[in-house]
Amino acid sequence: MTVRFVTGNGGKVREAREYLESVGEEVEQVAYDYAEIQSDDLAEIAARGAQEAFEALGGDEPVVVDDTGLFVDALDGFPGPYSAYVEHTVGVERVWHLVEPEENRRARFRSVIAYADGEREAQSASEGTSGEGTEPRVKTFEGAVRGRIVAPRGEGGFGYDPIFEHDGETLAEMSTEEKNAISHRGRALAKFADWLADEPAERKGPR
Amino acid sequence: MTVRFVTGNGGKVREAREYLESVGEEVEQVAYDYAEIQSDDLAEIAARGAQEAFEALGGDEPVVVDDTGLFVDALDGFPGPYSAYVEHTVGVERVWHLVEPEENRRARFRSVIAYADGEREAQSASEGTSGEGTEPRVKTFEGAVRGRIVAPRGEGGFGYDPIFEHDGETLAEMSTEEKNAISHRGRALAKFADWLADEPAERKGPR
Repeated sequence: MTVRFVTGNGGKVREAREYLESVGEEVEQVAYDYAEIQSDDLAEIAARGAQEAFEALGGDEPVVVDDTGLFVDALDGFPGPYSAYVEHTVGVERVWHLVEPEENRRARFRSVIAYADGEREAQSASEGTSGEGTEPRVKTFEGAVRGRIVAPRGEGGFGYDPIFEHDGETLAEMSTEEKNAISHRGRALAKFADWLADEPAERKGPR
Repeated sequence: MTVRFVTGNGGKVREAREYLESVGEEVEQVAYDYAEIQSDDLAEIAARGAQEAFEALGGDEPVVVDDTGLFVDALDGFPGPYSAYVEHTVGVERVWHLVEPEENRRARFRSVIAYADGEREAQSASEGTSGEGTEPRVKTFEGAVRGRIVAPRGEGGFGYDPIFEHDGETLAEMSTEEKNAISHRGRALAKFADWLADEPAERKGPR
């Protein structure tokens, strides 16, 4: 079976292949700019995105999207779902300064993989008014890494990596191998691969 | 004619009535939880919300939504479209501390009113795949107030009012009359009322 990963980031596709090819799934990269809704709930954002992409792209093959955010305990989860926006406006250095006065500097990196396919489910009576009556089946899988916010250190990585410390090192100080070993997206992909492996066999045969 | 204002906030409805009744429009409050998309563009967020609400609610009467944000120059517009989320997580005091080290403390409060009605327009070929071929007509109207970010002062208002100074006073120090006189939402509503007043007369007759 082939899964379509909707992303502009080839690195994410390569990471997905590492987890999914071992359970017999191929991963194809697809470019499509789905809408992300505003929500505190990363899984809801990803689920709605996967559903929209599946419906807009057409075709039978399942669709996968991902969403990732840095959630700082003392800031009630900020920047959370808006991590990319905050990185490009406020900047990582200022996020550190927001956390600096706090005693509790704990944070989590969270990734959600959302999967949508054509095994359509009956739409609940309370939802929507599109008149279609059914919508794609959507499943979400989450991975997280715990750490704490520190003054920027390290030359590697990107985004919030220099201010996120896990086990004594910032993500920007780790080698690619070290980072992959604790990858939040990897953990979400591993759960997703487990679920796919348990899916009924007929989904993997010829259609 | 009646315009349906989709909001949980009765104060916004009262403000809209002040501007719209003088051009012969009634304003009805409607509760509906439309999706707000993630975007740097306040007008795009409001336009998509109005379109979704109009389609989901059914009926003929036009629909109006509004979106408001505080845009800080030195933070590249942050918190902007996510002002409510940032108020509830980071908090207004910390937003002040983010701006405090900056020489340029200029900011704008911006409001967008988005209007959708059933005067359907042909959908451009590049957009959407819903197969409907048309979508509601959507218009947006913006109002803005310039000011600067200061240490919190004043007991009135809500949200960012204590840290937004205009003409020597923070919004939290102003009387309701003073605030209304410089209201960003009022300025957007005034533009909207002007546009409605110029709409063809047949839209205002009995349907």
